[in-house]
Amino acid sequence: MAAAAGLRALGAKGSGWLRRGPWAPLTTGFCSGGPAGIGRPEPGPRPTIARQRDGIRSIVLSDPKRRNALSLAMLKSLQSDILHEAESQDLKVIIISAEGPVFSSGHDLKELTDEQGPDYHAEVFQTCSEVMMLIQNHPVPIIAMVNGLATAAGCQLVASCDIAVASDKSSFAMPGVNIGVFCSTPAVALGRAVPRKVALEMLFTGEPISAQEALLHGLLSRVVPEERLEEETMRIARKVASLSRSVLSLGKAAFYRQLAQDLRTAYHLTSQTMVDNLGLPDGQEGVKAFLQKRKPVWSH
Amino acid sequence: MAAAAGLRALGAKGSGWLRRGPWAPLTTGFCSGGPAGIGRPEPGPRPTIARQRDGIRSIVLSDPKRRNALSLAMLKSLQSDILHEAESQDLKVIIISAEGPVFSSGHDLKELTDEQGPDYHAEVFQTCSEVMMLIQNHPVPIIAMVNGLATAAGCQLVASCDIAVASDKSSFAMPGVNIGVFCSTPAVALGRAVPRKVALEMLFTGEPISAQEALLHGLLSRVVPEERLEEETMRIARKVASLSRSVLSLGKAAFYRQLAQDLRTAYHLTSQTMVDNLGLPDGQEGVKAFLQKRKPVWSH
Amino acid sequence: MAAAAGLRALGAKGSGWLRRGPWAPLTTGFCSGGPAGIGRPEPGPRPTIARQRDGIRSIVLSDPKRRNALSLAMLKSLQSDILHEAESQDLKVIIISAEGPVFSSGHDLKELTDEQGPDYHAEVFQTCSEVMMLIQNHPVPIIAMVNGLATAAGCQLVASCDIAVASDKSSFAMPGVNIGVFCSTPAVALGRAVPRKVALEMLFTGEPISAQEALLHGLLSRVVPEERLEEETMRIARKVASLSRSVLSLGKAAFYRQLAQDLRTAYHLTSQTMVDNLGLPDGQEGVKAFLQKRKPVWSH
Repeated sequence: MAAAAGLRALGAKGSGWLRRGPWAPLTTGFCSGGPAGIGRPEPGPRPTIARQRDGIRSIVLSDPKRRNALSLAMLKSLQSDILHEAESQDLKVIIISAEGPVFSSGHDLKELTDEQGPDYHAEVFQTCSEVMMLIQNHPVPIIAMVNGLATAAGCQLVASCDIAVASDKSSFAMPGVNIGVFCSTPAVALGRAVPRKVALEMLFTGEPISAQEALLHGLLSRVVPEERLEEETMRIARKVASLSRSVLSLGKAAFYRQLAQDLRTAYHLTSQTMVDNLGLPDGQEGVKAFLQKRKPVWSH
Repeated sequence: MAAAAGLRALGAKGSGWLRRGPWAPLTTGFCSGGPAGIGRPEPGPRPTIARQRDGIRSIVLSDPKRRNALSLAMLKSLQSDILHEAESQDLKVIIISAEGPVFSSGHDLKELTDEQGPDYHAEVFQTCSEVMMLIQNHPVPIIAMVNGLATAAGCQLVASCDIAVASDKSSFAMPGVNIGVFCSTPAVALGRAVPRKVALEMLFTGEPISAQEALLHGLLSRVVPEERLEEETMRIARKVASLSRSVLSLGKAAFYRQLAQDLRTAYHLTSQTMVDNLGLPDGQEGVKAFLQKRKPVWSH
Repeated sequence: MAAAAGLRALGAKGSGWLRRGPWAPLTTGFCSGGPAGIGRPEPGPRPTIARQRDGIRSIVLSDPKRRNALSLAMLKSLQSDILHEAESQDLKVIIISAEGPVFSSGHDLKELTDEQGPDYHAEVFQTCSEVMMLIQNHPVPIIAMVNGLATAAGCQLVASCDIAVASDKSSFAMPGVNIGVFCSTPAVALGRAVPRKVALEMLFTGEPISAQEALLHGLLSRVVPEERLEEETMRIARKVASLSRSVLSLGKAAFYRQLAQDLRTAYHLTSQTMVDNLGLPDGQEGVKAFLQKRKPVWSH
């Protein structure tokens, strides 16, 4: 039960760890790139909520009335929450979740009408792509915690996270074809997560797959009953937060880099990464502690 | 039951949609590349049957006595059926299936004896490779509907389709090693569909895997009981046929292109694809219809 | 029961096929690259045991007291057992297994302390990488037979084999983060075997996955009850050993080469491989035997 306190407890806590204050500058003017009258005409409340405690940053998509659509405002808010003090040693892991029954429905279609024009459309897709690449390039592990429907760019967001945990009632779809917009950018992330036949059936039919199917095909790393979703995600996050940030950061960067390389180049790169890792203070401390049969004390 | 009418109904219909007439020129002389006396010495009946209705083209491998072997004649007949009026707006989706208990047993071994010589062998493998690449390069989605055994190049054909649906009694094997011919060209498609350990166990032992295992490992996108195979495949095909051909065509080409690219290049390419898609008449119509809460009317 | 004789029988047989004699020169001096006093200070008994019969070479990691750690000594012993008479026509397939409840715990941490220094660390990782690449570059199929826990570089060894069979009690982990050393080189093999989200959850948390999960995600090709592990592995090995070595060797090399290529290049390469294969004596014999409805007689 202590473990089950999870994210709900995080949400109930006070201003000591609630980071809304320092982040406030980001809440005005972040819509300025878009033409007037699009999406959210006035800077309103930020569509994401971010909190941090014990090294775990929780970012919640908080626009359930709009099915947490990834509007430009949402994307920029998410981007700034991910980027915020990314180099701080206090940050160990990020969890991205959502309020309401829809994790995210993807792009805001009001931003994709022909009135906006191709330049505005290009900004939307470029910003979205940058957020997705930011997740891989970020120094700490980023976990998607999904409880509900994730579609189009919302499914892309899940596929782009390092780890993805979902409740068994969740489902995933690429329904763009139903409205004449093939999910081509979401397919970049989906096609790197699941076998191509599964990806193409989703993309060509727009039909959803279940959480179990998503696990079977590699879109998720873990599926749990809804009532255990926060507990299980927090268990993973706390484990990650207990480890050396510098070690995980080095390893995460090497992992994505070597994936695209031929085997010999990949082993050359990662052998050097291993040597560098052993040269880190936390690498030396970890090995020493193990051989001395004691718990390691990480410097960061 | 209406839905279950499926492909059987297609097969029972008359000349109005039966495209044998216009395709007839292809039935003579398509064997001319092969030396006399090989495989089918005389131009006989075409080894595939193609029909089209409501945007759905059904191509049936129809040489069950030879276990639907992918002879040069069969490959060229299949190629011409896939290529036929490929740019026509009337064509929305292609289903490849087979007559009899064997989907396809792969190459015709009579064409691979040392009497034929390396030039002839090279023509067989080059033609086969062209058919497999044609499937990916074709403007419309191509679905394999498998009810039985698919081996060697027959399994390659399944692995090369965009979507693959199979009955639960189907099975898949790469048995070339049993006759001293490693399935190296089939392995190109298999190795891009399933994990490499699964691929190598199949290639090194020649033993079959079940439809359920094929689904588990990504060779298939869907497995259904035999009695529901046509119904389920037709349901997918009708869904695809109800969508915008220009949108699916744009998305299919971008999907395969981006798969081989690094993440940044892939997002750059597909962001432009998304902008282009929104500029298509059907892209604009789809978004507009959704915001106006009506059904879209596709121009093509 | 005859089939179940398996590897145990191999182990009980006499010197006729027990290759310890001819391999003996390798047992002295193979530690000479390492500084004195590291790991095994004196050349002791070799940490692997290799036997060969009927074309099947069995290499057993035999240092259960040290959890079959992949020390430099173990790596070099394994390397020499794999390389030994690799070009001999008598060798058809290699099985790598382990003595005791731990298949392998990965690197020997005593070799990774800061006292050894980066040059020694680099030698460890380079040797390890060479062994892993050797497995893919070896002319015959190499099978991992796992009965127990495989972690870090031990899990990398399983992921690097062509085929991997495990008992259902086996498990797999990448626990380096617990001791401040991210499993970056093991991740090269893991990231090419399982979906990236599964790989990253293992790498970021250090937690094990079960044999069933490993099968589901592609790390293994087969899972069987412990009492059937040797029987099933031997069944696969005997099947492989009954085939043409020259054909499998040609096909294995082409498989790994084409995997990294674009589709057109891959088909160009493998079409030539197929023609070359048909030109081999065993390729011609295999096709001829099939058409004559008799068993093929392989030349090698």
